[in-house]
Amino acid sequence: MKNSYLNVLFGLIYLSLIGCQTVGSDSTEQVVSQKLQKEALNSDLAYELVESLTVEVGPRLAGSQQDLVAVKWAELKLKSLGFDKVYKEAVQVPVWHRGQTKASITAPFPQPLVITALGGSIATPKEGIEAKIIRFDSLSALQQSSSDDVSGKIVFIDHVTERHKTGKGYGKSVGGRAKGAIAAAEKGALAIIIRSIGTDHDRMAHTGMMRYKDGVNKIPAAAMSNPDADLINAMLKRSKDIKIKLQLSAENQGVATSYNVIAEVTGSTKPDEIVLIGAHLDSWDEGTGAIDDGAGVAIVTAAGKLIQDLAVKPARTVRVVLYAAEEVGLIGGKTYAKTHQAELEKHYIAAESDFGAGRIYQIDFRASEQGYAALSKLSQPMTANGVVIGNNTASGGPDVSMLPSMGVPVASLRQDGSDYFDYHHTPNDTLDKIEPAALQQNVAAYAQFAYLMAQSTIELRPIATK
Amino acid sequence: MKNSYLNVLFGLIYLSLIGCQTVGSDSTEQVVSQKLQKEALNSDLAYELVESLTVEVGPRLAGSQQDLVAVKWAELKLKSLGFDKVYKEAVQVPVWHRGQTKASITAPFPQPLVITALGGSIATPKEGIEAKIIRFDSLSALQQSSSDDVSGKIVFIDHVTERHKTGKGYGKSVGGRAKGAIAAAEKGALAIIIRSIGTDHDRMAHTGMMRYKDGVNKIPAAAMSNPDADLINAMLKRSKDIKIKLQLSAENQGVATSYNVIAEVTGSTKPDEIVLIGAHLDSWDEGTGAIDDGAGVAIVTAAGKLIQDLAVKPARTVRVVLYAAEEVGLIGGKTYAKTHQAELEKHYIAAESDFGAGRIYQIDFRASEQGYAALSKLSQPMTANGVVIGNNTASGGPDVSMLPSMGVPVASLRQDGSDYFDYHHTPNDTLDKIEPAALQQNVAAYAQFAYLMAQSTIELRPIATK
Repeated sequence: MKNSYLNVLFGLIYLSLIGCQTVGSDSTEQVVSQKLQKEALNSDLAYELVESLTVEVGPRLAGSQQDLVAVKWAELKLKSLGFDKVYKEAVQVPVWHRGQTKASITAPFPQPLVITALGGSIATPKEGIEAKIIRFDSLSALQQSSSDDVSGKIVFIDHVTERHKTGKGYGKSVGGRAKGAIAAAEKGALAIIIRSIGTDHDRMAHTGMMRYKDGVNKIPAAAMSNPDADLINAMLKRSKDIKIKLQLSAENQGVATSYNVIAEVTGSTKPDEIVLIGAHLDSWDEGTGAIDDGAGVAIVTAAGKLIQDLAVKPARTVRVVLYAAEEVGLIGGKTYAKTHQAELEKHYIAAESDFGAGRIYQIDFRASEQGYAALSKLSQPMTANGVVIGNNTASGGPDVSMLPSMGVPVASLRQDGSDYFDYHHTPNDTLDKIEPAALQQNVAAYAQFAYLMAQSTIELRPIATK
Repeated sequence: MKNSYLNVLFGLIYLSLIGCQTVGSDSTEQVVSQKLQKEALNSDLAYELVESLTVEVGPRLAGSQQDLVAVKWAELKLKSLGFDKVYKEAVQVPVWHRGQTKASITAPFPQPLVITALGGSIATPKEGIEAKIIRFDSLSALQQSSSDDVSGKIVFIDHVTERHKTGKGYGKSVGGRAKGAIAAAEKGALAIIIRSIGTDHDRMAHTGMMRYKDGVNKIPAAAMSNPDADLINAMLKRSKDIKIKLQLSAENQGVATSYNVIAEVTGSTKPDEIVLIGAHLDSWDEGTGAIDDGAGVAIVTAAGKLIQDLAVKPARTVRVVLYAAEEVGLIGGKTYAKTHQAELEKHYIAAESDFGAGRIYQIDFRASEQGYAALSKLSQPMTANGVVIGNNTASGGPDVSMLPSMGVPVASLRQDGSDYFDYHHTPNDTLDKIEPAALQQNVAAYAQFAYLMAQSTIELRPIATK
């Protein structure tokens, strides 16, 4: 009712603008952008969605029972919102089970440690692994070390994650999590425990995906909390001979079927051309997946719903994609790119929301240089929502990051991530970390973005090389 | 070396004051107070002590192996600091083992919960207890409820702990933790899980002591984190029929011997009269006991050391008492009062530091009204350290709280506890939560307090009724 009323109201405003003013060719876009912003900032839908997902589904690790509960939740929710189309596409996902996790310092000063298994890690033997540790400042320092020093030990990478609005500290330290086990095993280590990739001082360890490499021994991998890493450093000042005992019962359990869940607002004049806004439906298993990525799911769904409810649909189809299994290797994103290979040339632009619920302060694009210049003008209505136009070097978000290499333009709607890595991949990823007003600002930005892109007459291809 | 040098320096300043100024009868106290403040604010000793205790001993639950490690640590540390006397006194302490703790919501929306066992709780049957929950706003609401509603259920007390500088929010909600199991069992409940007594939004549960009552059925007791309590409330909006499964393997294991560890600076003219400054050596088992009460141990030890190093010792003996087993029922404090019963009339005044490392903003006393008025003047040198003189209704801190009823005056050095209950009794009680400069300010206040009280000629008894 409310939306219908607003549609009529804005329709009248639009007509009055047409009738009374000298307007440029983008007046419709300006007016509808303003309407979308206003509606988004007055809507509780996104908060209701992320509340529903975290309360009624909760943690939803790819390939788990709860992952399929989340898929069902998404289908029902998208259908209930009245999208033109709702469907799902199968994705084969690796199944990993965390099991039990335990660690302690056994010498020189016995103390329990707070750790978490890294995603994909194998188990230790049941009795655990007990060995001396060797500390490195960074993955790079480990890679440059001698096997003589590392062999038979537990590697401790002590990289510190810096706090930045952009989140760039994560990129600097995450290599130690992803590739540390390979580098350590190549030098004969028995296991690896990294300092958590996180900016907090909470005694919670941050999980996240790690990798093995064919031909290199697989060793167990874990992360300890920042205060635990501080504790180890304090002990290292007293003695180089620190022993740790590590027990993990984690298990890789093969492959299961999950789903990308998709909703569409059918374009009015170019229905086969796609503007994609995505987020990922899976989460890690320790929090309730509120900021990662319940927020993104809520933002793009609520943005899509605002466009669905427009009296006049935009030219192109707006496709909301809720990806499967992002956390365990961008599996949903990669599968989408494959499944939709033939259709990728019809993808006008794509963007993913996967950085919590902090306010969006900038939009970056990745398109042709001429296209970018024109987009900068077209996107001006977004500045009223606090979003400045940035640059032409976007990557678009994890699940769409492979698309530029396939010729698809992308955009990155940059969120303030100052506190994102305080909670990321920990039990602390819960609903209370989301500020409702900031979530609304995100919805406004995505709704404006999707609408403007779906209306755009700008040629974005071929995209510029970075 | 540094201290000797400073003693000479301040001695010279003192002599110059005596020689050149018209001074009141408390000049010595003023000058020495200034010296103690300056030295405390320039000393790293307290931080080194709490760092050493948390790194080299860590968690030290009363009656555990690590509790005796802590006792040994304290004895050696106090001896190495050169106190006139160092000794220990046996304390019989209850032994409780946390065991494994697990809980989950099993209906209507299955999710794991983050909980902790409350200290002293019995175990559940091995297969756990699974039952519907019933929610109460407060202990009082539970006490007023009908057995018909509570019987056969798991009680959930949803009291919220308010944030205050004084920490008074704790006092308002802690009854639910201490007495909730008794009230719930009296109405036929199977178990109790409270919202954590904590002001944070971290997904960490706060432990702490609970009680049983003779003649009332013992039921398992636990606390859930604040975000988990929020989650349950969100579910209760959807359905009143929430089921929780609780598994605890906690165990009460009888009694063990621990120790109050005591150091003294022998008084120069009234060595049999005592000024007691205390803290407790034991901690909960989940953090490293940095703020509770490693900070207090460090503060009173460093304060005592500053007095030990004075060229001229104060009149009365300053006794530093590191109490055993505070967390599990003020056992060290009660034992001290019994052991020293005959000597209590010689206790001039007592105070305990047990509220973290926030700055001291006020000192309250509990003495005769005339004594309080005179103490207010005597304590003026403390105001230069940011400590205002408060009132005459102090309780003195947990382990000395029983002394006023035995006629012993006490003081409360009030700390800013705004964030104390964010970390209290959780894994987050770690060294990084202590601000070194605030710790120094505490040492200055305790050193000044102990010195001034040891020099005082004021009669403090009989203490006023509250």
